[in-house]
Amino acid sequence: MLAAGSSTAFSLLRRSVSRGFGNFATMAGKGASTAATKGKKKEVKKETGLGLSYKKDDNFGEWYSEVVVSGEMIEYYDISGCYILRPWAMSIWEVMQTFFDAEIKKMKIKNCYFPLFVSSGVLQKEKDHIEGFAPEVAWVTKSGESELEMPIAIRPTSETVMYPYFSKWIRGHRDLPLRLNQWCNVVRWEFSNPTPFIRSREFLWQEGHTAFATKEEADTEVLDVLELYRRIYEEYLAVPVIKGKKSEHEKFAGGLYTTTVEAFVPNTGRGVQGATSHCLGQNFAKMFEIDFENEKGEKAMVWQNSWAYTSRTIGVMIMVHGDDKGLVLPPKVASVQVIVIPVPYKDADTKGIFDACLATVKTLNESGIRAEADFRDNYSPGWKYSHWELKGVPLRIEIGPKDYANNQVRAVRRDNSTKHDIPMADVVERVRDMLNHIQESLFEAAEQKRDACIEVVHTWEEFVEALGQKKMILAPWCDEEEVEKDVKTRTKGDMGAAKSLCSPFDQPQLPEGTLCFASGKPAKKWTYWGRSY
Amino acid sequence: MLAAGSSTAFSLLRRSVSRGFGNFATMAGKGASTAATKGKKKEVKKETGLGLSYKKDDNFGEWYSEVVVSGEMIEYYDISGCYILRPWAMSIWEVMQTFFDAEIKKMKIKNCYFPLFVSSGVLQKEKDHIEGFAPEVAWVTKSGESELEMPIAIRPTSETVMYPYFSKWIRGHRDLPLRLNQWCNVVRWEFSNPTPFIRSREFLWQEGHTAFATKEEADTEVLDVLELYRRIYEEYLAVPVIKGKKSEHEKFAGGLYTTTVEAFVPNTGRGVQGATSHCLGQNFAKMFEIDFENEKGEKAMVWQNSWAYTSRTIGVMIMVHGDDKGLVLPPKVASVQVIVIPVPYKDADTKGIFDACLATVKTLNESGIRAEADFRDNYSPGWKYSHWELKGVPLRIEIGPKDYANNQVRAVRRDNSTKHDIPMADVVERVRDMLNHIQESLFEAAEQKRDACIEVVHTWEEFVEALGQKKMILAPWCDEEEVEKDVKTRTKGDMGAAKSLCSPFDQPQLPEGTLCFASGKPAKKWTYWGRSY
Repeated sequence: MLAAGSSTAFSLLRRSVSRGFGNFATMAGKGASTAATKGKKKEVKKETGLGLSYKKDDNFGEWYSEVVVSGEMIEYYDISGCYILRPWAMSIWEVMQTFFDAEIKKMKIKNCYFPLFVSSGVLQKEKDHIEGFAPEVAWVTKSGESELEMPIAIRPTSETVMYPYFSKWIRGHRDLPLRLNQWCNVVRWEFSNPTPFIRSREFLWQEGHTAFATKEEADTEVLDVLELYRRIYEEYLAVPVIKGKKSEHEKFAGGLYTTTVEAFVPNTGRGVQGATSHCLGQNFAKMFEIDFENEKGEKAMVWQNSWAYTSRTIGVMIMVHGDDKGLVLPPKVASVQVIVIPVPYKDADTKGIFDACLATVKTLNESGIRAEADFRDNYSPGWKYSHWELKGVPLRIEIGPKDYANNQVRAVRRDNSTKHDIPMADVVERVRDMLNHIQESLFEAAEQKRDACIEVVHTWEEFVEALGQKKMILAPWCDEEEVEKDVKTRTKGDMGAAKSLCSPFDQPQLPEGTLCFASGKPAKKWTYWGRSY
Repeated sequence: MLAAGSSTAFSLLRRSVSRGFGNFATMAGKGASTAATKGKKKEVKKETGLGLSYKKDDNFGEWYSEVVVSGEMIEYYDISGCYILRPWAMSIWEVMQTFFDAEIKKMKIKNCYFPLFVSSGVLQKEKDHIEGFAPEVAWVTKSGESELEMPIAIRPTSETVMYPYFSKWIRGHRDLPLRLNQWCNVVRWEFSNPTPFIRSREFLWQEGHTAFATKEEADTEVLDVLELYRRIYEEYLAVPVIKGKKSEHEKFAGGLYTTTVEAFVPNTGRGVQGATSHCLGQNFAKMFEIDFENEKGEKAMVWQNSWAYTSRTIGVMIMVHGDDKGLVLPPKVASVQVIVIPVPYKDADTKGIFDACLATVKTLNESGIRAEADFRDNYSPGWKYSHWELKGVPLRIEIGPKDYANNQVRAVRRDNSTKHDIPMADVVERVRDMLNHIQESLFEAAEQKRDACIEVVHTWEEFVEALGQKKMILAPWCDEEEVEKDVKTRTKGDMGAAKSLCSPFDQPQLPEGTLCFASGKPAKKWTYWGRSY
């Protein structure tokens, strides 16, 4: 069986390697020196140059594919829907992980690791849940040359993996709360539109699973965790999100209610479910017999939550901030916050300039700023500017003969290209300020763009028009599942149907007598609608 | 297909749950208060009490299974060979990870994440390599109800996953070295003797994959990483290891040579491959066409390494240090280094004692010592002592009326049960010293035990006798693969065959004319032999 189809698989891979080669050569750019490399390069330069071939506003899909590859975040893999997370992306994941892991530890949530595999019997224990996931489950049926006695599933999420053991571990009220988290990979074998970070067959995430004696405690945690997700998006990734509740139709399969932070991508006019924090109620507890003896000596059922954020976060950040020059990384998540580039000139004191660069990096590093110098001698300063712009480094510092003579550096912001001459003596303070400003500016710009896309509608006609204009639509809704299904049916098309994104916690006033935009029945709440990833 | 066999799987699970229940009730111990719990408990107490049912020296296998479960490191899972890593184990993994991750980052090694899945064509590209792994590979053949066009393998290790992309990314000498690492899960569907931590079908590890322009650089890194592995075992887990080189027969499939840190479990007389650092030479480079243009403009092949340590480390630590009271955790990896237990007495100032406990924890925490207090009111101090001994906490602090009156605490070491009265004013300094001493003592005791098991032999008769005595055998060897195979054949039996563990870097003198213990041919090196995990 090993031999079967191997040549096909490998030729696919080689195709992908050679197709991708253009990007690599693009990165090598104009500075490389040898004949062999030049030969490869010239061929490509005609095609693309160092910059991107696609513009964000003209062809968003191609722009995104190009920017994730050229920016060295992702490499396409020979299995469709799987992607390689390169160090430039992984370092962002690690920054978020460090933040989130410390925060949940403060909340007394403990890390654990449950197996990747789940037996079919356990997987289908909760009916609604398995209905939600069954079509996407990957099944292991063989090991080596032998058929397994029974197929074994790869976790699409770990409710059913974990909860039989919650049932075992929880006996009395003193065993509660039980609050666990794990950092792991999960697999959902989806067939629609794989997109790097945003929709992949395997992805990285954390999944928290907790059990409480009371609904109140569970409710509180759902929101505490949702606030951490908001902070990841807004404070780290500089992406504005809307906190709210999912509709019955869109909630987690088998849960009681789902809260979400919803982001929006103005270019495509699509919402993105940023991260979700679910109250599972007592549904899984019933199925998995997770009961305990309460303080009165009575048998009671636990209240459960589960919550997760994924590597999708990185994709949302790229889609929101990236521009025609490439990635734009918020300083808080950039593994290189400042790139220092020497700009020597033939008569100038090159050694002095290089030393000044080194000293600048050292000073910044000592102050906790992540700075690096690019001393490569086979690339021109201009090429390096483009290269690090493509990679999205928030701040570039140039040191040329004039800067060196004046004991200053020139700082150039990635987000708005403004240039600032900074006395060497002030470099730490000024750089820190600029990084803070960049972080804030990115958020504000993204928020303005997002807000400009929000359209309040009251009628079906307004709704259809706003949808055509790629808006994030806020509409009064009767909150009936049948009506949501009907909206989906009526908006089906090439671009995909509209669905509810969330009912924001922050509800505008809903005057009595307001009618649902879709059904004409009395409206119960304001809800965001739109197409979505 | 989902439905098939589900009831069997679930009934298996329920059996495992109820079988395991004894352990849980054991943990609940004598302190629980309600009638219902008491009913459960009494039943079990007769059987086991709070302590372990098995002794390490009498029945090591059962002792180990019991200690990993009762110590709350592991929960058995309903899929054979898969285990749940509970927070008590996961926190140890995290301590090692924090150390190792920081060290490799200093070496400019960067983290990345490659997919879990590998296509069959790529997997079998390197023939020796796939021969080594093929029987253990788990295959995904279905998603939802659909058969995949081609079966897809789950990574048993990621050489073949990564190296097609090394080929793509490496073009010129400036692209070298390429040094990547990933933290992930891998799957090896083994059928022999699954053992928690030591041999499981899925395990956690880091895998480093690097490429260099020269063999010298690769050789250097192999040893640099091996030294980090030694430090994990000796400095963190307090487990002595022997650094050495694996034989041709035992080296990594497809590699050039394998270095290892070998641990030893005196109770079973078995060696354990602690962690391995491989030089792959240019073998994979040839298969995956990983070449580059060197500084002279010539095409050259890269030199590669791969290296890994796994969650097995935790199992080795448990086997080496654990005793009849339970786990014994080295302070450097213990998530709770000091457990503070109030010992109130009816007439005493209970509030004063509790406050003193709180103050002690606070003082210790502020000095970076991981301390917690156990204020549970439904367990007696005696029960708590046993509980935290079972969990292996290095140091217990008791505060009773007399201690409180004298403004002192009583500290009790887990490793040797010695008691020390410490003035409250000196608590930080004295506790820090004691933790350091415990760490050192554990290592020294383990080293003495291990050393007492090492037997130097020269002849086959001596070898067989030493093997019968469960020794780690150091013998002069001709270094011929056929002879090693022959040793395996001749020692086959219920206990498993003997094999070479490693040729230590630290070689004793080998006088000219020394003959191989097994073949009688001239010996080339001293090599450790024994049974192994």
